[in-house]
Amino acid sequence: MRVIPQNVQRLIDEFSRLPGIGPKTAQRLTFYLLRSSDKDLGDFGSAVLELKKDIKTCSTCSNIAESDPCHICDDPRREKTSICVVEEPLDVVAIERTGKFQGLYHVLGGVISPIEGVGPDELFIKELIERLKKEDVDEIVLATNPSIEGEATALYLQKLITPLNIRITRIARGLPVGGDLEYADEVTLSRAIEGRLDYN
Amino acid sequence: MRVIPQNVQRLIDEFSRLPGIGPKTAQRLTFYLLRSSDKDLGDFGSAVLELKKDIKTCSTCSNIAESDPCHICDDPRREKTSICVVEEPLDVVAIERTGKFQGLYHVLGGVISPIEGVGPDELFIKELIERLKKEDVDEIVLATNPSIEGEATALYLQKLITPLNIRITRIARGLPVGGDLEYADEVTLSRAIEGRLDYN
Repeated sequence: MRVIPQNVQRLIDEFSRLPGIGPKTAQRLTFYLLRSSDKDLGDFGSAVLELKKDIKTCSTCSNIAESDPCHICDDPRREKTSICVVEEPLDVVAIERTGKFQGLYHVLGGVISPIEGVGPDELFIKELIERLKKEDVDEIVLATNPSIEGEATALYLQKLITPLNIRITRIARGLPVGGDLEYADEVTLSRAIEGRLDYN
Repeated sequence: MRVIPQNVQRLIDEFSRLPGIGPKTAQRLTFYLLRSSDKDLGDFGSAVLELKKDIKTCSTCSNIAESDPCHICDDPRREKTSICVVEEPLDVVAIERTGKFQGLYHVLGGVISPIEGVGPDELFIKELIERLKKEDVDEIVLATNPSIEGEATALYLQKLITPLNIRITRIARGLPVGGDLEYADEVTLSRAIEGRLDYN
């Protein structure tokens, strides 16, 4: 005998499929929506269904966008000579929020991960190299995550780009601001010391 | 200039409105869905939109159900003389999962909370009292949460039901199984000692 009605269980199952949402959280979210107004429920449902509507992939940088080229590639004020390579569209959002980078982006669409069966051909790496050969680029900023896969992908890209005679930089690894030296892991602390900067 | 496309931001906002989902989690969930197949996205969206379809409130116990009376109230094998009072439909699910209660339920639809402006009239308390006067009930199990509001609501119900000459019990408060005496708070430990049971 079912304790939870079918349509309710169905949404619980859908929530459970999302990353980081366990069965208890899925239940809680579903029962919250069950108590919300029909309008709010409709808004949420149609936001899900229309998520991919009018969403394009920029044919230059592979970022998700509302237009092709995307508004960053299309912006005359951006420095065309600097390209920041990131794993995912969310990384672009994170870097844009800092306001510290005025160049263009290139979204790889993931990282090289043999365990998950993702090789270089699955990523937008060929497109990056073609772009570098065609455009007048002075600097490539490798901004993949400081994870094993991210570092390996950065290394792979570095080897691929080196023959093109372009300045290659990697975003700094070190202590997070507000972090505590005492509790930092060895690798992070090693990177922080290696990457030390001169006081000007 | 928008960094995140409008339809993507819209779903991020909808996720952010859910309890316990912060802006970062909302972003992560949305970008996960953006990468999922059109079919999976459609399944999720329609599960949201159809959540309340065919969902009724049982006119006897106020639980959410697919039929009225619900399948618990309608089940001839359940003990009709015992009613367990809970705050929310999810509490019914939790108790049913234990398999330790064979009686019927009564869902209050919340707890008395003056701060949130919820008085006894907002809850299905009148319906409970009418039910107790009409039906042949031997025991009321008060199973509201062991929070301040839950305890206050249980106390309120106890006073209301006492004149009806029905046995009233309250689910035990004490140490959670797997918990540690050393780390238990004083109130929980006090309840555990007060509620101690004889070895038979």
